[in-house]
Amino acid sequence: MRMDRIVLAGDLAGTMVFAAEGAMAAIGRGLDVFGVVVVACVVALGGGIIRDVLIGDTPPSAVRDWRYPALACLTGLALFAARHVLRPVPAWYPLAVLDAAGLSLFAVTGAEKALSRGLVPLGAALLGMVTAIGGGVMRDILVNRVPMVLVSDIYATAALAGALVVVAGHRLALPGRPVACAGAATCFGLRLLALHYGWHLPGATPPS
Amino acid sequence: MRMDRIVLAGDLAGTMVFAAEGAMAAIGRGLDVFGVVVVACVVALGGGIIRDVLIGDTPPSAVRDWRYPALACLTGLALFAARHVLRPVPAWYPLAVLDAAGLSLFAVTGAEKALSRGLVPLGAALLGMVTAIGGGVMRDILVNRVPMVLVSDIYATAALAGALVVVAGHRLALPGRPVACAGAATCFGLRLLALHYGWHLPGATPPS
Amino acid sequence: MRMDRIVLAGDLAGTMVFAAEGAMAAIGRGLDVFGVVVVACVVALGGGIIRDVLIGDTPPSAVRDWRYPALACLTGLALFAARHVLRPVPAWYPLAVLDAAGLSLFAVTGAEKALSRGLVPLGAALLGMVTAIGGGVMRDILVNRVPMVLVSDIYATAALAGALVVVAGHRLALPGRPVACAGAATCFGLRLLALHYGWHLPGATPPS
Repeated sequence: MRMDRIVLAGDLAGTMVFAAEGAMAAIGRGLDVFGVVVVACVVALGGGIIRDVLIGDTPPSAVRDWRYPALACLTGLALFAARHVLRPVPAWYPLAVLDAAGLSLFAVTGAEKALSRGLVPLGAALLGMVTAIGGGVMRDILVNRVPMVLVSDIYATAALAGALVVVAGHRLALPGRPVACAGAATCFGLRLLALHYGWHLPGATPPS
Repeated sequence: MRMDRIVLAGDLAGTMVFAAEGAMAAIGRGLDVFGVVVVACVVALGGGIIRDVLIGDTPPSAVRDWRYPALACLTGLALFAARHVLRPVPAWYPLAVLDAAGLSLFAVTGAEKALSRGLVPLGAALLGMVTAIGGGVMRDILVNRVPMVLVSDIYATAALAGALVVVAGHRLALPGRPVACAGAATCFGLRLLALHYGWHLPGATPPS
Repeated sequence: MRMDRIVLAGDLAGTMVFAAEGAMAAIGRGLDVFGVVVVACVVALGGGIIRDVLIGDTPPSAVRDWRYPALACLTGLALFAARHVLRPVPAWYPLAVLDAAGLSLFAVTGAEKALSRGLVPLGAALLGMVTAIGGGVMRDILVNRVPMVLVSDIYATAALAGALVVVAGHRLALPGRPVACAGAATCFGLRLLALHYGWHLPGATPPS
């Protein structure tokens, strides 16, 4: 029960911040109202749908529970309505923070839902990562560009680190809520620090 | 039983028209016989596979029932065989009508199958839309271009409108067959009128 | 039992060769260590995940069984560590052979797993093909290029031929292991012969 409520609260919060991030990115590219709502829904619901299909929990929450699509659509519509207010804001900084927040929330809820389904630890950590990056990868594939996950190195790594914290806490039988917070903080902090200081993983060739 | 037969008939008809549309598009781009059959199958079967995976009806009809892949392959082969006859026809008009027909049929069958699985109305309408646009989105991703759904505004909207008619008819307990026809007519008419008159949704920026 | 062990052995071997192929391709493009591991995992696990989702065997082996992701990650890491040794080797030839080997192994195991789930022969052959080409298609979509399967004609065809041999052997109740070997040999031989002699399928237009 406790675990379920953490998953639900994190999922809904992640849905809203990812929908906001997707909508702001779509507004920045001049899409119409439907495009903005579609991109908001893809980013917000894509990762959870992939997670639920992979663990066999179908239909996915995103279509079974009306709160997920309604929240994503309304967030997209609200930001579209407020687009003239948002435009002057330099886009990249709030986008990056929203994206890191969504990444952290979904990495944690993905790993927890996978654990509650009895997946092995490595599988649960990978599913947490996939839940976190899935929506963004689907968005990048739709708008026909190389997914950020392949060009920005401490992105999926941060999601994986957050999911690993959750998995480790579960193995050590630590209480669920502090572990979830620690996992989200690990992912969020690692992602923002990497952005701020320009951290990179060891590469096969120097970046050209 | 009645509902099942409407879904089956609509699905098979949609499979054939989408396979024809995919094959004609592939022939127009000069693909060989295998490429034509692959594109025909992706457009014809993609949406239904996504729908069946999302509602948990696996294996999807497209691999469980031999009629779907056989119909898609044969349609692709037949159009490939007739390609010298087809070539002189200016491609865009029959393609657009076939595409609108497939869109309407799949929007209706997707929503009905989702309702028969007990999905909530909003989820069923979204699944109808996803079923209708799924095959085309997969085709556009494969041939590496931005999906039509993001650049042509009254496309997914038309599918959603058709699916909403089906969902509303179901809520009002109206008889299944007329509701299915009304949903398909709504989607088909809306799509063709939008094409003919160049209708657009309100956009964040004027089209450049 | 026999069938299960053939599927498992073929799957693990295919996972390793596809992971090696993906890692070498990623190293050749200068990706960092995480990118190399991600591409290795996508190529190695993508086809099997699609197969398991389609036949409803969720969670897929790739996340339920720790050996699959561990093997793919370790293969990627090992090749990354050895990248200075690998660099001088002209990349295309070992890549093409590894790719053909992975294609053959997954075409056979995909068809066998689908048959063991009671799919109709045509569905099982198509699933074998999808299992074999799925990882490569996902890789090409991620790095934003047209999938090889649409431009290189005797590729998916070879996978389909191998899967058809397995399905035919199953219909004739022939013993499982020789049939699996014959299927893999058909696919592997056909792919390498097509590469070596530049075989093409009949095309709608001469290649330009």
